[in-house]
Amino acid sequence: MTRAEAEALDRDDPLAAFRERFVVDDDALIYADGNSLGRLPRETAARLHRRVDEWGSRLVRAWPDWIDLPLEVGDALAAGVLGARPGEVLVSDSTTVNLFKLASAARELRPGAIVTDAGNFPTDRYVFQGLGGVVQFETDPIDGPTPEDVAHAIDGRDVSLVSLSHVAYRSGALADLRAITAVAHEAGALVLWDLSHSAGAVPVELDASGADLAVGCTYKYLNAGPGAPSFLYVRGELQSALRSPIWGWFGQRDQFAMGPAYDPVAGIGKFLAGTPPVLDLAAVEVGVSLVAEAGILALREKSVALTELAVRLHDERLAPLGLELGSPREPERRGAHVSVRHLDAWRICRAAIERAGLVPDFRAPDSIRLGFPPLYTRFVDVWDAVERLARLVETGEYLEVDPGTSRVT
Amino acid sequence: MTRAEAEALDRDDPLAAFRERFVVDDDALIYADGNSLGRLPRETAARLHRRVDEWGSRLVRAWPDWIDLPLEVGDALAAGVLGARPGEVLVSDSTTVNLFKLASAARELRPGAIVTDAGNFPTDRYVFQGLGGVVQFETDPIDGPTPEDVAHAIDGRDVSLVSLSHVAYRSGALADLRAITAVAHEAGALVLWDLSHSAGAVPVELDASGADLAVGCTYKYLNAGPGAPSFLYVRGELQSALRSPIWGWFGQRDQFAMGPAYDPVAGIGKFLAGTPPVLDLAAVEVGVSLVAEAGILALREKSVALTELAVRLHDERLAPLGLELGSPREPERRGAHVSVRHLDAWRICRAAIERAGLVPDFRAPDSIRLGFPPLYTRFVDVWDAVERLARLVETGEYLEVDPGTSRVT
Repeated sequence: MTRAEAEALDRDDPLAAFRERFVVDDDALIYADGNSLGRLPRETAARLHRRVDEWGSRLVRAWPDWIDLPLEVGDALAAGVLGARPGEVLVSDSTTVNLFKLASAARELRPGAIVTDAGNFPTDRYVFQGLGGVVQFETDPIDGPTPEDVAHAIDGRDVSLVSLSHVAYRSGALADLRAITAVAHEAGALVLWDLSHSAGAVPVELDASGADLAVGCTYKYLNAGPGAPSFLYVRGELQSALRSPIWGWFGQRDQFAMGPAYDPVAGIGKFLAGTPPVLDLAAVEVGVSLVAEAGILALREKSVALTELAVRLHDERLAPLGLELGSPREPERRGAHVSVRHLDAWRICRAAIERAGLVPDFRAPDSIRLGFPPLYTRFVDVWDAVERLARLVETGEYLEVDPGTSRVT
Repeated sequence: MTRAEAEALDRDDPLAAFRERFVVDDDALIYADGNSLGRLPRETAARLHRRVDEWGSRLVRAWPDWIDLPLEVGDALAAGVLGARPGEVLVSDSTTVNLFKLASAARELRPGAIVTDAGNFPTDRYVFQGLGGVVQFETDPIDGPTPEDVAHAIDGRDVSLVSLSHVAYRSGALADLRAITAVAHEAGALVLWDLSHSAGAVPVELDASGADLAVGCTYKYLNAGPGAPSFLYVRGELQSALRSPIWGWFGQRDQFAMGPAYDPVAGIGKFLAGTPPVLDLAAVEVGVSLVAEAGILALREKSVALTELAVRLHDERLAPLGLELGSPREPERRGAHVSVRHLDAWRICRAAIERAGLVPDFRAPDSIRLGFPPLYTRFVDVWDAVERLARLVETGEYLEVDPGTSRVT
């Protein structure tokens, strides 16, 4: 596979023009970490600026236009990205806080254990540990949790909630959302999916899958910026039975009556807590609209082609150098990033950033993650990423890099 | 009191120049609702733009510079506004979520009732109701909670936490933070202050007062924009004994080791949950630095003069028209807003906004709040605000306004 062949794939890419919709001020840099922090859409600065102007000129009089933004942006996300219905999604608070709200609500409705996998994202595991009664099961570190793993972990227990990541943050394994949901339901448990690494990269189809609950972040494949607010989903039929553990005034019926007793609204809005982040929601609107415009099926098709290329190039260039594929080989079992493993992964990542114009990321203990968000990643970027990694390893240049002490991101 | 006399006060105002630091694109508009949503500082758009640019160009490589922002902005707020020490304040999440974290933490450490006043801000009351075991006591609707009220409400009970607003949202009553804290401590309870209506307007002196815990919002007198993140304070000596109910990865020691078990950091950072809102924190930085630059004592001095003028003008112009002062008369018992009461307050507020170029706000059932943030409010604004209200009432013009059905803000 030559670089020219990768260039040919880019010429045939029907989504190629979307790269122009993002700020790319250094075309020589290969950014392979959009799975951690997505790129800045060109439109975002202007949209933020307009909202800031609105604050400056309309002041508090703009609140009637802002107050429903968490639900309006949620509806756009539901329709364009998540396969959900209007009134099932809202955007506010962080993924961690939303995990806490929904897992607490599930536990209140159905007491019992929370089942998750030991390889789930840290904040998910920590939130569940804080709630108590967690059953953590081991999975294959590459293939991630299977329906059989979940059935085995449930094992006749009283289970309140099964919660997993749709795409595993380390290996990129794509869980079988529909089958695992069915296994959990057979055991009488609710299911809470963390879509942080799949929303915007993989079709989700929350409604069709029967999923009960979901959360996810908007700063990865939805490109809404560092610390952008998270979304949560509650299946319409469940909304009346569940309640948030955080009783806040933005969930209150007739909010500005400021009445004596908490009396939440009937719909998804009951899972709001405090005042939503109005400026940030402008960035989420832009990010969601770009994914919706490209279309999640087209994005997935390109994403599979990108990761297939990465796996093929891994086999050609990296495997002979002693690296191992840390992601599933079957494209239908993978999200939009590919991990490669090496005992000195941390130092190779530092060297890539400092010397090779390549930004991957490191995930302990031995993974180099290469994220290829289909909205703006070119096939030639995949080719260059693998080639730059290969050269760092085959020349031993990565050994010259000071590993330092800080391991932020 | 003539308008010319108010103009003379502005000429002598040592803080007058700070008004130029804010966007004021309609000088004829009297904005008397900065106690709900503060004005836009001129510097904010540029600072946000710089941070957005940083996202666009540095991408994930900027995270090492962003990751401590909640604590760095917290330290600036501690030193410049709250009378607290470094490492006692952080900025992230909403006021509601922060109330939930700290009240839950207090309950875990000291089981017992949560004592609050029935006139406290709704989200505070709702959060406490959600935690259960609330004792709500009545207070004078104008003077707010006194130390005697709190002692009476405690009444030999096992009390975990006393939580009040430092400045009452409706009447503007300023509670005696030090004396009430002492009463609560005598009963073995912790104290959680909501500083939403005092931070940036009134000296707080958290450390000197002996207060244990505090939260507050940054979009009122700190001018950080709609839905800007909230702050929380935990006295240094208490940090090791308390823990957040929301176990999130941003509170985790050696966060990027992504270890199996939650193991929070020792300091204030343990009260972080999810990824902090990096863009928003730029706006908080600007807002905090303006208050710190003006100086909280100078701001308070001007604020007292502004509200004294408002009370005097109320007596001259509004009382004869049947309105009543809804705030304490003694300046040392008031925050930075003044409420006036009228049975048709809602319609008068609508008429003020739609016909008189005056933006007050309405608080159910009968209060018209006039907020006078000292950073940008002129004495002549106070004069004009009262005069415009008086004319609406004396002409009966407010009766021509459709009260509508929506009561947002």
